[in-house]
Amino acid sequence: MATVKLLSDAEADANPRVKAVFDDIRDTRKSDFVNNFWRAAANDPALLERTWGGLKEVMAGETVLGRAVQEMIYIAVSSANGCGYCVHSHTAAARAKGMTDAQHAELLAIIGLAAQTNHLVTAMQVPVDPVFMIES
Amino acid sequence: MATVKLLSDAEADANPRVKAVFDDIRDTRKSDFVNNFWRAAANDPALLERTWGGLKEVMAGETVLGRAVQEMIYIAVSSANGCGYCVHSHTAAARAKGMTDAQHAELLAIIGLAAQTNHLVTAMQVPVDPVFMIES
Amino acid sequence: MATVKLLSDAEADANPRVKAVFDDIRDTRKSDFVNNFWRAAANDPALLERTWGGLKEVMAGETVLGRAVQEMIYIAVSSANGCGYCVHSHTAAARAKGMTDAQHAELLAIIGLAAQTNHLVTAMQVPVDPVFMIES
Amino acid sequence: MATVKLLSDAEADANPRVKAVFDDIRDTRKSDFVNNFWRAAANDPALLERTWGGLKEVMAGETVLGRAVQEMIYIAVSSANGCGYCVHSHTAAARAKGMTDAQHAELLAIIGLAAQTNHLVTAMQVPVDPVFMIES
Amino acid sequence: MATVKLLSDAEADANPRVKAVFDDIRDTRKSDFVNNFWRAAANDPALLERTWGGLKEVMAGETVLGRAVQEMIYIAVSSANGCGYCVHSHTAAARAKGMTDAQHAELLAIIGLAAQTNHLVTAMQVPVDPVFMIES
Amino acid sequence: MATVKLLSDAEADANPRVKAVFDDIRDTRKSDFVNNFWRAAANDPALLERTWGGLKEVMAGETVLGRAVQEMIYIAVSSANGCGYCVHSHTAAARAKGMTDAQHAELLAIIGLAAQTNHLVTAMQVPVDPVFMIES
Repeated sequence: MATVKLLSDAEADANPRVKAVFDDIRDTRKSDFVNNFWRAAANDPALLERTWGGLKEVMAGETVLGRAVQEMIYIAVSSANGCGYCVHSHTAAARAKGMTDAQHAELLAIIGLAAQTNHLVTAMQVPVDPVFMIES
Repeated sequence: MATVKLLSDAEADANPRVKAVFDDIRDTRKSDFVNNFWRAAANDPALLERTWGGLKEVMAGETVLGRAVQEMIYIAVSSANGCGYCVHSHTAAARAKGMTDAQHAELLAIIGLAAQTNHLVTAMQVPVDPVFMIES
Repeated sequence: MATVKLLSDAEADANPRVKAVFDDIRDTRKSDFVNNFWRAAANDPALLERTWGGLKEVMAGETVLGRAVQEMIYIAVSSANGCGYCVHSHTAAARAKGMTDAQHAELLAIIGLAAQTNHLVTAMQVPVDPVFMIES
Repeated sequence: MATVKLLSDAEADANPRVKAVFDDIRDTRKSDFVNNFWRAAANDPALLERTWGGLKEVMAGETVLGRAVQEMIYIAVSSANGCGYCVHSHTAAARAKGMTDAQHAELLAIIGLAAQTNHLVTAMQVPVDPVFMIES
Repeated sequence: MATVKLLSDAEADANPRVKAVFDDIRDTRKSDFVNNFWRAAANDPALLERTWGGLKEVMAGETVLGRAVQEMIYIAVSSANGCGYCVHSHTAAARAKGMTDAQHAELLAIIGLAAQTNHLVTAMQVPVDPVFMIES
Repeated sequence: MATVKLLSDAEADANPRVKAVFDDIRDTRKSDFVNNFWRAAANDPALLERTWGGLKEVMAGETVLGRAVQEMIYIAVSSANGCGYCVHSHTAAARAKGMTDAQHAELLAIIGLAAQTNHLVTAMQVPVDPVFMIES
């Protein structure tokens, strides 16, 4: 159903670069489960390494926001980009990392409001207030 | 430059429904400044009331996420929706509400990563893992 | 399959705020059917009330465009935002409110054309003609 | 400022295919003004002919929706696609074709609502109700 | 499941304009298969003719990019627009026209990178460097 | 005007990690010019390193598509994502890497067509043909 093959564990193990990343995913997440995104990305070991490397650095590295907030921001972007897979996987991740129902509800409320004002601003072509333009 | 008139304070004051919302914006934000978005929305008092009502309820009401995190989620959605005005105004708001440079940097990193994996998932049409499909 | 629970009628009835909105949806639409969107939104009574309130005000209140045209505009936005659920539900609503096959065909033609010129404009970065910039 | 040259009238007149389209734009619109989009598209006479041909057929041909409604749908799509140029030019066109302030306000309200529910649906991954899935 | 009927061969044959386009699709592609997109578009013969006409002119006419590259660009746009159907059909087309696994991998890598920097640029509201603004 | 500071050369030189990346950008591109995107990203040295690392690996590493085609795919994604800055910078890059006017014209034509059929598919909710669903 994907436009690329989803690598099985046997196929992943057959390529040392893929195996190394899958091992690191399992280690980092302390779980044997490797989800379909990585099995798809694994067709290109360089893409797999680069994408996992970036994700690990940010989503499993030092954080000032905390894990649940990180995942909520991920959900926000994924919703606006219309990626159903990503919404599903990062909502699961957010819950696993402690997002409460109340936090989820507040997240959804903000996503809805932001979408509304984003579209109104574009439809009205509102010029940026000079006070917002001062370079930080 | 907008596709609707931006109401001046005098024009806003001339309509009691608009005046009431502008007064409430100033009260809620403890600032005299009313930014262009509201001056544009004010052409339709019902839209102004409804939009401000929703925003006030969520962005100035009870929160479990905290003000800075709320604004960061707003920035995330606005970035994905390509709304420059909204990115500017909510980055200013996030800073005013305590977002640090380190938080901003982490937010930007997540926006970039999410966009990357969102597009990869769509380009590869990755099927949702059954484990993510269990209704909460 | 959703990332939130879809409330059953029994669960909706158990919360007075949710029950009141579901009753109003049924009254307003003169139909017993409450579609999944509302059953999902009902997890957060405040979101449910606010969203239904806005929708009722615009889509079931006074209108200068007429019901079918309102729904066609909703379909146009939903298509551009890639929301399959919304395209399905608002196409059904538009038909129920009188959209003819000829109107639907014309709507689809405009959606296609607009998307094409939208993308061409962005790809060529066409500057706005000064004559379009005069504030209304 | 564009990524392609904007053809002047002299340059347009030098190419018979471009001249023919520009003449037809002027005839159809009963105005001497040719806006920048066409001056950009004119770099590729085949693109110019095809795009203008489609637009003329739909936006200046037989219509069951009427000119103002057609333009309002165009604005709706352009807003969701984030095309500022298109929002400006089609808002000007809609006004020229009779869109009233009240119609514009209602259009804006629907754009905002649709964006909000589109994003909420995606963020909650609401499954399509079976009743919406019956093929027309 | 679609919001319009998908025309069967018998229904297509019953309308001479639709039959002519379906015949031309089969001739041009040297295949009896007509995919669902055309069966949906066929509800409006003018839309069918115009859309097939444009597609044939560009995707089956003279090309400086070559067929596989054309389809890869189509996949890139379809991915960013979140059109799963289009990603599926144009990935199949790209393969049929000679896209190799290595080319597909490179395409995916670029789609991911572009999405990432697109969103970062928007989130940081980076001003265009003057050197990029010189009209071609 | 950006929401982050654009680092000057002096500021970039003051941070060894930033300096190393800027030096590598100049070496790789054989040009002294470092565009605003990198000056903005440089506020977060980790983001700068990761983003430049990915870009260099794909856009300046081994390629089966060739440099001009790579940049054209980048333009396609950037157009669909509505990133004006990215369209400007990658159109300049594509030209510098050999994209001809004829190639640019064909690229634009495909972007327009793809957007049109993407939106039509979504507006009609066309189901994927089974033949496209066979896993590669």
